[in-house]
Amino acid sequence: MNDILSRIASVIESRKLANGGDPQKSYVSSLFAKGDDAIMKKVGEEATETVMAAKDIRNNMPAGKLVYECADLWFHTMILLAQFDLTPDDVLKELARREGISGIEEKASRKKVS
Amino acid sequence: MNDILSRIASVIESRKLANGGDPQKSYVSSLFAKGDDAIMKKVGEEATETVMAAKDIRNNMPAGKLVYECADLWFHTMILLAQFDLTPDDVLKELARREGISGIEEKASRKKVS
Amino acid sequence: MNDILSRIASVIESRKLANGGDPQKSYVSSLFAKGDDAIMKKVGEEATETVMAAKDIRNNMPAGKLVYECADLWFHTMILLAQFDLTPDDVLKELARREGISGIEEKASRKKVS
Amino acid sequence: MNDILSRIASVIESRKLANGGDPQKSYVSSLFAKGDDAIMKKVGEEATETVMAAKDIRNNMPAGKLVYECADLWFHTMILLAQFDLTPDDVLKELARREGISGIEEKASRKKVS
Repeated sequence: MNDILSRIASVIESRKLANGGDPQKSYVSSLFAKGDDAIMKKVGEEATETVMAAKDIRNNMPAGKLVYECADLWFHTMILLAQFDLTPDDVLKELARREGISGIEEKASRKKVS
Repeated sequence: MNDILSRIASVIESRKLANGGDPQKSYVSSLFAKGDDAIMKKVGEEATETVMAAKDIRNNMPAGKLVYECADLWFHTMILLAQFDLTPDDVLKELARREGISGIEEKASRKKVS
Repeated sequence: MNDILSRIASVIESRKLANGGDPQKSYVSSLFAKGDDAIMKKVGEEATETVMAAKDIRNNMPAGKLVYECADLWFHTMILLAQFDLTPDDVLKELARREGISGIEEKASRKKVS
Repeated sequence: MNDILSRIASVIESRKLANGGDPQKSYVSSLFAKGDDAIMKKVGEEATETVMAAKDIRNNMPAGKLVYECADLWFHTMILLAQFDLTPDDVLKELARREGISGIEEKASRKKVS
């Protein structure tokens, strides 16, 4: 389970047009072909769907929908990261950095993990 | 690095009011105290900031900003998941499930990892 | 110009399936046919595009793009309002109400027009 | 009612720092003082709240909440427009232009009012 993000990042990387990705065959390649704005729009769209799924839980819809939409959201942020040659590992490192400074329990900043 | 998401999920869990989290001392606890809507708003807000950071890269801003905002976005989705007793592991499992069915390279669905 | 919102609201109303709207012929009818979630997603999507257009202005893109995206955003919020039998006039009344209380210039609330 | 958008646009314009707006006294002035990104974030935030309010209606919350959030959303898009020296009138003109071409009832484009 641990390296699933890395594996997905590899698949995404392989879908870049420069790496032989085919927009006719791959959804990810088609997003890369469309470029920056198409990918950003998807991130905004999936965030909205994530919020909607959370609302639905309070209206007796299954919580699995939220997991599903979060997966969509994370997946598309990974495509956005890849578009700028960044990886989920960069994000995990940033999260780890924040965790490291979270020992001091103050509401000093919303940026730390506390 | 691999288990950073799990470690953060544990910290988040410990910040729940039922687990002794103190809204005066912890940002995460303060979000739990405010409830569903406050957490959802943050997810929407961080998604917008992620898109803005991506736009800024094309305007000569450092790519690190995008990593930073993605970390914020993922972090707040983890708080949202925790609010409904879900974990990042649930999201990783969903991503792994999709990866497993991505071998068949068809643009059959945007939902698969391809 | 003044009653353009009312005229558009009338067109939107006429596109409801109950009023004879045809999802095959009208984009608005097709949204009504899909229901709540499809309309909400569009509002989220158009808001993201509005933000992107604003970012683009600072990157030497024409400001007209922002006008265009705002029009899209307002248009889709009008469809969302119509879905719940509300009108842009209701929104204008709310805005007028806030304007009326804006004389007292205090930063008492972000909700007033000041 | 008809000119409420123009009146609000005038108030917003008067809140610009260059026009004597005081960030200590006026919420709008404080947004102008913070600049582009702060205003864009608010647009994203209010769009999320609009979607949440729509979801809440299906969960037996009053529809007035949706009107309220739409007012917030429109109000902040007007601040964003003002930041780039644009007005709600520009948006209304764009909406009128689309209405003018909506007679031909084809689902040719999502951009037209049909």
